[in-house]
Amino acid sequence: MTRPDIALLTDHYELTMVSAALRDGTAERQCVFEVFARRLPPGRRYGVVAGTGRLLDLVREFRFTPEEIEFLQRTGVVDEPTATWLADYEFTGEISGYAEGELFFPGSPILTIAGTFAECVVLETLILSVLNHDCAVAVAAARMVTAARGRPIIEMGSRRTHEEAAVAAARAAYLAGFAFTSNLAAGHRYGIPTAGTAAHAFTLLHQDEPAAFAAQVAALGKQTTLLVDTYDISQGIRNAIEVAGPALRAVRIDSGDLSVLAQQSRDLLDSLGATDTKIIVSGDLDEYAIAALAAEPVDIYGAGTAVVVGSGAPTAGLVYKLVEVDGRPVVKRSENKATVGGRKTAVRRHKPTGTATEEIVVSQGTVDPAPHDRPLQRVFVRDGRVVPDVPTLEQSRDHLRQCLISIPWEGLKLSSGDPAIPLTVIPARA
Amino acid sequence: MTRPDIALLTDHYELTMVSAALRDGTAERQCVFEVFARRLPPGRRYGVVAGTGRLLDLVREFRFTPEEIEFLQRTGVVDEPTATWLADYEFTGEISGYAEGELFFPGSPILTIAGTFAECVVLETLILSVLNHDCAVAVAAARMVTAARGRPIIEMGSRRTHEEAAVAAARAAYLAGFAFTSNLAAGHRYGIPTAGTAAHAFTLLHQDEPAAFAAQVAALGKQTTLLVDTYDISQGIRNAIEVAGPALRAVRIDSGDLSVLAQQSRDLLDSLGATDTKIIVSGDLDEYAIAALAAEPVDIYGAGTAVVVGSGAPTAGLVYKLVEVDGRPVVKRSENKATVGGRKTAVRRHKPTGTATEEIVVSQGTVDPAPHDRPLQRVFVRDGRVVPDVPTLEQSRDHLRQCLISIPWEGLKLSSGDPAIPLTVIPARA
Repeated sequence: MTRPDIALLTDHYELTMVSAALRDGTAERQCVFEVFARRLPPGRRYGVVAGTGRLLDLVREFRFTPEEIEFLQRTGVVDEPTATWLADYEFTGEISGYAEGELFFPGSPILTIAGTFAECVVLETLILSVLNHDCAVAVAAARMVTAARGRPIIEMGSRRTHEEAAVAAARAAYLAGFAFTSNLAAGHRYGIPTAGTAAHAFTLLHQDEPAAFAAQVAALGKQTTLLVDTYDISQGIRNAIEVAGPALRAVRIDSGDLSVLAQQSRDLLDSLGATDTKIIVSGDLDEYAIAALAAEPVDIYGAGTAVVVGSGAPTAGLVYKLVEVDGRPVVKRSENKATVGGRKTAVRRHKPTGTATEEIVVSQGTVDPAPHDRPLQRVFVRDGRVVPDVPTLEQSRDHLRQCLISIPWEGLKLSSGDPAIPLTVIPARA
Repeated sequence: MTRPDIALLTDHYELTMVSAALRDGTAERQCVFEVFARRLPPGRRYGVVAGTGRLLDLVREFRFTPEEIEFLQRTGVVDEPTATWLADYEFTGEISGYAEGELFFPGSPILTIAGTFAECVVLETLILSVLNHDCAVAVAAARMVTAARGRPIIEMGSRRTHEEAAVAAARAAYLAGFAFTSNLAAGHRYGIPTAGTAAHAFTLLHQDEPAAFAAQVAALGKQTTLLVDTYDISQGIRNAIEVAGPALRAVRIDSGDLSVLAQQSRDLLDSLGATDTKIIVSGDLDEYAIAALAAEPVDIYGAGTAVVVGSGAPTAGLVYKLVEVDGRPVVKRSENKATVGGRKTAVRRHKPTGTATEEIVVSQGTVDPAPHDRPLQRVFVRDGRVVPDVPTLEQSRDHLRQCLISIPWEGLKLSSGDPAIPLTVIPARA
């Protein structure tokens, strides 16, 4: 699938830095950049790596076309030597990092990019855009999945976010354990199961609610979901069972006090003999609203706005920092942003029971091994080529499920608190 | 510029509704849908219409390819008759609404889509995605522009949001009065001026800060911006002027207490004779932080995260509602969501001085005219064709500037409060 001007999804300054570095010869210095979060957004106890698979597809196609280079020259962004360099641009270095679905914490080196300064720096903006967005959605979605306690969730937030962000959000939510998405492009591109039946407009289109329900059942069968809250919910449920019979698959309620309505609707459905008809609730659900419905007879949740906008934290706070130049650790020394230079190696330490206890990050060295350590980094791109065994979306989804089982149970609480496990950074030995 | 699977940027249920409506003959009923916000996000006193131009480009290309239709059939989303209908799909109706750059309030009918039920309903998701995103960014950006009191702002948030949302955000911010964007694709696609020079990585790449500054000045000249906070800001400024001389265009500070640092930096620059060297500040600036810097000697602001994520309100809360079927007003009757059915006409009422006083919205009729009324709707698509005189981005930018001048000054306050002007809805005469 070819997308337009991928290589221009880039900040102007990446190319002016390339210009200046080509001119003084520093462009060819071997560099290591790392992607990490200095802190987690308020209320988060872990991060979820998401977007890597999507990113690798984009890196594979990241080239500057002649027309794009002409634009960059005409607008004075780059000079002639840089234009020549861009025309041949192809990433030839190495990208490694945490697998999709892995958890991360402040300081986790979730992606490492190694190559010449110039070839690495031009990827900065795109890498951060993809990861900051997808990780923000994935962790919000993971918290909702935890709150739903095994009940399926349908992602239906496409209309609340940018049309392409919607597709990426559907992917991140599925990775995090959502069961379905409403977004057809997410089904098309990533094979994610899609779901959906009807909106209030379909009921309004008809003479009355029974007519609308009859039309829907005629077209989609009884294994469909009837939206019962266009007028009066109790009457809507009666109409639904009248039209479809007690074998109706589900009713959906999209407004009102969902805890009260869920119980009333269950009682009414049962009294009509529709004991197997499921109840789907939607309408501004976030992880807290989902948790609050745990005791109610809800079968399936629909989550929209909150998941696609990261439920209060729409960006993951990931940064892309130069940590090594020609083998020498480098670090910016501004106040409050002290970080450790040098290329990092990361492992997660576990109890014999499998419970994670700590993440250990070593700069320019290897971690002294302990039993039950799990290395967190793998190679995604070697010599500029994406390796063949990048995990699939389904594998990443399974991986996250395992990771969430492995952290101490306090780490899954929705309330604010410390990161689920501590992270220790061991600086390079001098 | 061709984009992949535009017509699949659509919720599953839009197509199941088409299926059911084709089957019972209601698909051909003449319908009117309207896009409006039930309320403004917390703290907002007005909304800004943005994204319409981008949307019209997408609607123009909205077609289902054979491969996409095959996908929809294979996955059971649509049946054979619907597949046939999709293959011929092309919007043939009318789209009208508020111009880009126009203000809106709760209940303003910012977009009206008229045509058959089926042809209108399939556009719902895409229309809402584009407008909810772009309007959310535009209003956040407009509030920052007001707070900046004439000082230019550079949009530099691409890395904090989805890579395609970044381009749309740059466009919305420019519409709202930002002077530049860092996003090259926004320059390429929309002709928005781009800006950027160097990141901390460029300084770290070099042996020391003077070497980095010398390299940058050699490549980009003295009309560049040197980033002075990699190590020590005062020494950074001394190094900058040492290398570039007092004709240096600007220094940038990206961390620390910006109000203190701006004044210290101004004093230091002046003492070094660099009285014309400008000061650019950046680093987690939102409208409140910008307002707090009003008294400091800042020349240019760089805004990133806050603008692209809508500064606390990442989605505009716009909905797409069926309001008329075959000339008959329709309305959903669920509690707390009472809205008025029927196609609306909207005007903004003004004092003779030009100050806006009220927005009047009439259902199924025309507004009784008053002097200084301004009609708010125009036709964008007639008989399925985009009209030739859609305002340009520059015209929309000017229009917003005029609109913001026209509202009472209280409406521009950053604090929470009522909408800048009241909106009155006059229901259809029975």
